[in-house]
Amino acid sequence: MMKSVATLGSHCALQLLKGANDEKLNTILICEKRRERLYKRFNFIDKIILVDSFNEILKKEYSKKLDNSILIPHGTLISQLSSNEIESINIPIFGNKWILRWESDRIKKEKLLKKANIPTPKRILTPSQICKLSIIKRDGAAGGAGYFLASNEMEYKKKLSNLINKKTINKNDKLYIQEYISGVLVYLQYFYSPTKNELEFLGIDQRHESNIDGLSRIPASNQNKINKELTFNVIGNSPMVLRESLLDEVYSIGERFIEASKKLVNPGIIGPFCIEGVYDSNANFTAFEFSARIVAGTNVYINGSPYSALLYNENMSMGRRIAKEIRESISNDNLSKIIS
Amino acid sequence: MMKSVATLGSHCALQLLKGANDEKLNTILICEKRRERLYKRFNFIDKIILVDSFNEILKKEYSKKLDNSILIPHGTLISQLSSNEIESINIPIFGNKWILRWESDRIKKEKLLKKANIPTPKRILTPSQICKLSIIKRDGAAGGAGYFLASNEMEYKKKLSNLINKKTINKNDKLYIQEYISGVLVYLQYFYSPTKNELEFLGIDQRHESNIDGLSRIPASNQNKINKELTFNVIGNSPMVLRESLLDEVYSIGERFIEASKKLVNPGIIGPFCIEGVYDSNANFTAFEFSARIVAGTNVYINGSPYSALLYNENMSMGRRIAKEIRESISNDNLSKIIS
Amino acid sequence: MMKSVATLGSHCALQLLKGANDEKLNTILICEKRRERLYKRFNFIDKIILVDSFNEILKKEYSKKLDNSILIPHGTLISQLSSNEIESINIPIFGNKWILRWESDRIKKEKLLKKANIPTPKRILTPSQICKLSIIKRDGAAGGAGYFLASNEMEYKKKLSNLINKKTINKNDKLYIQEYISGVLVYLQYFYSPTKNELEFLGIDQRHESNIDGLSRIPASNQNKINKELTFNVIGNSPMVLRESLLDEVYSIGERFIEASKKLVNPGIIGPFCIEGVYDSNANFTAFEFSARIVAGTNVYINGSPYSALLYNENMSMGRRIAKEIRESISNDNLSKIIS
Repeated sequence: MMKSVATLGSHCALQLLKGANDEKLNTILICEKRRERLYKRFNFIDKIILVDSFNEILKKEYSKKLDNSILIPHGTLISQLSSNEIESINIPIFGNKWILRWESDRIKKEKLLKKANIPTPKRILTPSQICKLSIIKRDGAAGGAGYFLASNEMEYKKKLSNLINKKTINKNDKLYIQEYISGVLVYLQYFYSPTKNELEFLGIDQRHESNIDGLSRIPASNQNKINKELTFNVIGNSPMVLRESLLDEVYSIGERFIEASKKLVNPGIIGPFCIEGVYDSNANFTAFEFSARIVAGTNVYINGSPYSALLYNENMSMGRRIAKEIRESISNDNLSKIIS
Repeated sequence: MMKSVATLGSHCALQLLKGANDEKLNTILICEKRRERLYKRFNFIDKIILVDSFNEILKKEYSKKLDNSILIPHGTLISQLSSNEIESINIPIFGNKWILRWESDRIKKEKLLKKANIPTPKRILTPSQICKLSIIKRDGAAGGAGYFLASNEMEYKKKLSNLINKKTINKNDKLYIQEYISGVLVYLQYFYSPTKNELEFLGIDQRHESNIDGLSRIPASNQNKINKELTFNVIGNSPMVLRESLLDEVYSIGERFIEASKKLVNPGIIGPFCIEGVYDSNANFTAFEFSARIVAGTNVYINGSPYSALLYNENMSMGRRIAKEIRESISNDNLSKIIS
Repeated sequence: MMKSVATLGSHCALQLLKGANDEKLNTILICEKRRERLYKRFNFIDKIILVDSFNEILKKEYSKKLDNSILIPHGTLISQLSSNEIESINIPIFGNKWILRWESDRIKKEKLLKKANIPTPKRILTPSQICKLSIIKRDGAAGGAGYFLASNEMEYKKKLSNLINKKTINKNDKLYIQEYISGVLVYLQYFYSPTKNELEFLGIDQRHESNIDGLSRIPASNQNKINKELTFNVIGNSPMVLRESLLDEVYSIGERFIEASKKLVNPGIIGPFCIEGVYDSNANFTAFEFSARIVAGTNVYINGSPYSALLYNENMSMGRRIAKEIRESISNDNLSKIIS
């Protein structure tokens, strides 16, 4: 009988395993040797399996070591393994593992957002077409490192060559240019329970990125040198709530995402997901990304969020919500509905 | 016997009704039909009364439908109904409904702050007198949309005409020009219990406004186009605590506000209010606004705040604090002291 | 028998005494008369000792008044008393009082960080050597008031003379010039228990400083006047979490700090400390300060933090953690290990 949850030691592992422990599930951490000292500090982790590198979990022996376990995917799984590798994992994965490919591929990502009728920034096809402030991104979940801004082709070329020189970007990296929309950035954290067919909105976070965050403390007249090196490396997150009048649309966006995912990636999204976007000066929302699994920004709410407090009388983190779904599915004998 | 609380479905309705439910009061939501789907998700709402538009509550039949209820006013009531309309509502209103007029009218607002001896930014009487950075605001609680910055008359005219073209501002809107004070913005959340004659300081929030918040992530050299369209549309809020050495003055500001309100708008402020201002580089406080009712920034603390934890052993949101006051006033038979 | 904790009325006194009360210790506040009204509001303070000024605690009579008490030091003790005075206090002090001198003296501070092998910003020895963006700081824990930025000697001289004219800086103040590193600023909050030889990472906060924080909301083209008056006066704090992949290094930094402190300031750090620094665009950490006692940023977590929730099932503020250490040391009869 399934009764353990396992996850990779990074990203939101502490939240996930603490939540699983709160829900009385066994907890297993797949941990790089160099990180063992960190994770040994936490007594809600029942078992640590040491690996040299995370792709060891692809080996056959691991499906045995992780017998009776469900693997919770997060950003580290996606950044360390290819979509093909993830799909070939022999351990039951919480959620729909096929949708992770749609997160990693920018063209698929845009397709899913469009199918959900969620506005996205205009895509700019070549550097020569940059005519207003744009953001340039690499493929994959690299946490924003190497992203940069440019207002025209010349600035694009200058900054790109600087980032290639500094080896932040590889000459062969696939780049993706989006219109930059300025406003309030939000990371909308959802949980969809396919067993109850219910969507829950559990929280919002803001991201802190280096060194773009530091720009705000440098007077215009001193920005010269800094400007050349601006990038968006995610360092942390902080909490936020949204104007209540925007909440109905937030739920609607989430529901459209669920519907679109059911059409494009059977059986559709399961469990946590995140829509990442910006509210412009007219309070209109544009999504520039989604994550089809738990995001690290939920770590802000290990204690519960203002929104989870409206739904639960306990401190319900996203990690605990996942564990609760697993525990209840085991009880109700419909675990197959939430794993892949 | 009064035992239900009712409120309009927006702004901080979820917090208010969750808090009332925690205090074992019945909860009623007056809800626009288009928002029914949102509010039906929350099981702490006992009854939803659907309306086409919020001003229906002015109709006689509603005083019957809301028999035995107390209406909690919030920002949506103020932005959707005129002061005259609010004062004519036939349902008992929590707090002093006459003071809401003082919030809506900028001249009255300035008068009350001055009476309380709370420093306010210098008012600038005509655009030609703008000689340093100033902020231009419209009347009413429009959540900051259409506010703009200007350093001189020319910039004022240029930006105003741009905002009129975009229909963010109406040609006939009354505008109010204030000296702009730069520093750390704070929204100080108070609760005054007239039955106990006690002031409680329950939290501080920061506001996130679009697209002014986005400015901080745009290098000076790329700001050209964005600059023309900067405004202050409130999107959300996040938590904050204040240097403890500033706390004594924070309480003193609150007490002076209570005293001034008693002199100017009998019987004075009742329940929640908020003083909104800025700490400059010398840590001196200047108030640019107040709200004479619960503010949406309290949604940050649905779980309780660091300051409420100093006063209560339960998670005490502002919404729950209001409900507690009502429940205790019912028990002690002095409800008349807290409604109008 | 020791069973009371005492502290000065400012900085984080409310958190400290609330935490002590939660741990069933008696609480004593040493309070300036002008602040009595504030602190009388909180019923977890068992006794208030009024003073005209905090240095009265150096008088002999106070060692009697505070019989059976342990004094918890915080930033106000350090800013109001000299290192010599602090070391001469006749009341048992929680932690290692000799290390406070290492916090106050910038040369000693740099030495301890270097001993711990924690990267620090390059020190710039004379204004003429300023060749890129630098920050200029005064000695002591003045909360950032009078700090300023300069990119070259001319800018340094201009801004300094402006701040001297405004009396924010004294002509004789010792100034310290550091390379300015732009990125995400973090204040890492640790607790070290010497009785258990265990390090706990309990939270991270961000600081809000005036008027540098206000800069982010002023377009480049309007910054002229503001720029001259930028400084870093701490007004408040807000919560944050860190990318989990950075957490192992965070613990390692804390452990190296503990080891270095044991070598340089016998018996080393005891209880709370804070490493204050910045993550640059490569997510590399540089520490620009440390505090060898509880920091005010812990006030963000009076309710507990996401990190304390991983370690404790109760809401564990830093103040409560200190009280817990004292209570347990009293029980185990090894109080001498945690006081000086």
